[in-house]
Amino acid sequence: MFINMKRTATLATIATTAYLTGAYFEKQKIFQKHKFLQNLDSRPGLPIFGTVSAAVPMTTDELKSSATSRISQIMKYGFPGLDNVRSYSDYVLSYDRRNRVAHWVFEHLTAESIKSNDKVDRSKCDFRSDESIHPFFRSENTDYKKSGFDRGHMAAAGNHRLHQSHCDETFFLSNMAPQVGKGFNRDSWNRLESYVRKLTKIYPNVYCCTGPLYLPKREPDGKMYVKYEVIGSNTVAVPTHFYKVVVGETADGHLEMEAYIMPNQIISDDTPLTVFQVPAETIERSSGLLFFDKINRKQLTKINGRKC
Amino acid sequence: MFINMKRTATLATIATTAYLTGAYFEKQKIFQKHKFLQNLDSRPGLPIFGTVSAAVPMTTDELKSSATSRISQIMKYGFPGLDNVRSYSDYVLSYDRRNRVAHWVFEHLTAESIKSNDKVDRSKCDFRSDESIHPFFRSENTDYKKSGFDRGHMAAAGNHRLHQSHCDETFFLSNMAPQVGKGFNRDSWNRLESYVRKLTKIYPNVYCCTGPLYLPKREPDGKMYVKYEVIGSNTVAVPTHFYKVVVGETADGHLEMEAYIMPNQIISDDTPLTVFQVPAETIERSSGLLFFDKINRKQLTKINGRKC
Repeated sequence: MFINMKRTATLATIATTAYLTGAYFEKQKIFQKHKFLQNLDSRPGLPIFGTVSAAVPMTTDELKSSATSRISQIMKYGFPGLDNVRSYSDYVLSYDRRNRVAHWVFEHLTAESIKSNDKVDRSKCDFRSDESIHPFFRSENTDYKKSGFDRGHMAAAGNHRLHQSHCDETFFLSNMAPQVGKGFNRDSWNRLESYVRKLTKIYPNVYCCTGPLYLPKREPDGKMYVKYEVIGSNTVAVPTHFYKVVVGETADGHLEMEAYIMPNQIISDDTPLTVFQVPAETIERSSGLLFFDKINRKQLTKINGRKC
Repeated sequence: MFINMKRTATLATIATTAYLTGAYFEKQKIFQKHKFLQNLDSRPGLPIFGTVSAAVPMTTDELKSSATSRISQIMKYGFPGLDNVRSYSDYVLSYDRRNRVAHWVFEHLTAESIKSNDKVDRSKCDFRSDESIHPFFRSENTDYKKSGFDRGHMAAAGNHRLHQSHCDETFFLSNMAPQVGKGFNRDSWNRLESYVRKLTKIYPNVYCCTGPLYLPKREPDGKMYVKYEVIGSNTVAVPTHFYKVVVGETADGHLEMEAYIMPNQIISDDTPLTVFQVPAETIERSSGLLFFDKINRKQLTKINGRKC
């Protein structure tokens, strides 16, 4: 997966420009079609980003450049895929328009970004539909209502505590997937999220990629089938599993990886998280994505807790 | 869906560059990893295209520009989506790496391109894996073996009769999906393909987009589920349905659209094709794609045979 760094840097620039351009035009097209949206989100010159908070008011150019550099930081080790990429102020997402759930969500965590902050109040955040997604492919709160599933965060709210707006933006429904509530979202999945946050005590930089899986299962007829429920009038897919691929960067630049798959079902609280560890390749093959592809896997000094 | 034509032209240029760049780098990365592939496909300066046939040998630059203009022609009315786009000499494809089947395949048919041609022999074509796809996500002939399914063309071989290489390239497995053979691929689906070819008698230009669908069904528990088989060690998805969205452009520039969904199952030969007509929006919502989005739907003078 390693390609030389110079080419990689060029690639990143080209790719970022392409995604941002794509995102920009998609939004413009939607605005063209649904002019009423323009009033809701029409920051001139900064059309693709969400709210960027700052103590001192910045110019549009400053905002743009600060947001762009944050995206470069989050995506430092590569994009897992390029389908419908969207950047928010503190995370980046690729949206699966067929399943109305993200393909992947990328975050960069530091001790500072996860520290509890009096100025950020999660209870002020509202689950709301993401109007940057074309209405045909957008999930709505009504889809989840009476479905029996939680609106489970992919980028966890607790990972984005620097600004109220960072926390707010994790409540876009594009960042949600239908998750079993009790025993999963509120319990074992939450345990995994807390564990990832704690990694910032060991690593100054933690890169975390999260997303859904739709895994096949052998049925009594001996054949393999992918089967998943879809909920609401927008037929939002209920993933069979979720994954996290995490890379910790040590102060001296060593890179260590952990990868997890958890079934979207009730999991006993006493199940150790290590039970869910898998080789990253397993997730790659199932999801159609390539994680951290700017890192040569041979560069990793530890994988799932084992020295390489 | 209409956006002004000037912006559209700029968009097309930017987008095409971005896709081509993406495709180029993906291929380069694979080459970097699997150096043995370089001998198989390493036309310098023309890395993303397949073979381009020509009676008179062309320079690399001429080949590149002729291939690029062919792609612009095929994609004249917009890309349905931007995920893993690949261009071949006479069709363009977007690959679904999770399902190992295309999202969509785009063709431009004319009376000339479908005319039978002594120099093109279908029996010389071999089904072969597409090495431009990362090995994790590539379907192989072995996946189809003993699966009970045909390797069904998305871009039909019979639509590409100008050059042997055009026909050859439709045999890449990236252009195949598992289809029920008797009663579907060899019968009613084939009837639909022939019908589309016949449209070139009415329209000088026919644009055809083809792909798979994975449609949900209500089960006895009252809930909706998407369920599909996956075959072989690469777990190639067996679509529940296939679609075609076709636009005919008349000599005086009128645009007429037809859209079809056919279930991937035995269909009685006497079922009229009109039974399978649906509004294009139905396919868009199910597939996560937007078809012919450079055409304002109000510009269409006929949809599914009815005057608008």
